[in-house]
Amino acid sequence: MACSIARTLDVIGEPWSPLVLRNVYIGINRFDQLQQTLGISRKVLAERLKWLVERGVLERREYSTKPPRHEYALTPMGTELCDLLLVMVRWGDRWLAGEAGPPVLYRHHACGQISHVELTCSVCGEQMRATDVDVLPGPGSLATA
Amino acid sequence: MACSIARTLDVIGEPWSPLVLRNVYIGINRFDQLQQTLGISRKVLAERLKWLVERGVLERREYSTKPPRHEYALTPMGTELCDLLLVMVRWGDRWLAGEAGPPVLYRHHACGQISHVELTCSVCGEQMRATDVDVLPGPGSLATA
Repeated sequence: MACSIARTLDVIGEPWSPLVLRNVYIGINRFDQLQQTLGISRKVLAERLKWLVERGVLERREYSTKPPRHEYALTPMGTELCDLLLVMVRWGDRWLAGEAGPPVLYRHHACGQISHVELTCSVCGEQMRATDVDVLPGPGSLATA
Repeated sequence: MACSIARTLDVIGEPWSPLVLRNVYIGINRFDQLQQTLGISRKVLAERLKWLVERGVLERREYSTKPPRHEYALTPMGTELCDLLLVMVRWGDRWLAGEAGPPVLYRHHACGQISHVELTCSVCGEQMRATDVDVLPGPGSLATA
């Protein structure tokens, strides 16, 4: 059965990839910085970065030639994937942050206020949560993978 | 460093858990059904279900006593986690569905239209994507884990 969730998980579906994305999103984008902040082995990090570059989520840029050193940047596809992080944050803040409160706050450029994301309908603009929709087969429902 | 993304991944951060959630969300909620539709080993499925129950995302209910058989239901915490699936769907539809188009369509109860989720600001209601925010330390930033 074709499924956009399964396909998305194929790109980011192990715990390190979203944390790599988070770090690149907040500007921690060089190999050594990523390795230190994530506390991940160099081998695993190199594999995840290679995978995310191959899948079109990150691009690799050389910032030093002697010695050769690389940094990573979000592609447009990767930037949109970071939207998912904002929704993860919202859920984690609500259900897992406890009395200490949210570890990170988000200030919205448009209004300058500390806020969080809401999910709304692209057509009518009203709230659109998982309980607010019916699920129907789409044109790609018979595609393989 | 405290992080709501890392905490959320601790709950759902391997590929099977979101697919288990997806299935329970669309009503495939008995062990044997889950096992058959996901093509996952009984052992791995049992472990994931146990984990999701322990973390408060699913609850387990007996629907037959002879023989004992169980089904799984989303808790309020789990239902909110399904919001994340809608955002995964949107990204997968946009970037990975190809010419076949979206495998699944979502009809919004409020307006009756086929639509998708948009991320908007809880304060001003305008679009709030990952590129629309500044990230600041929050009250729980020094919490451990």
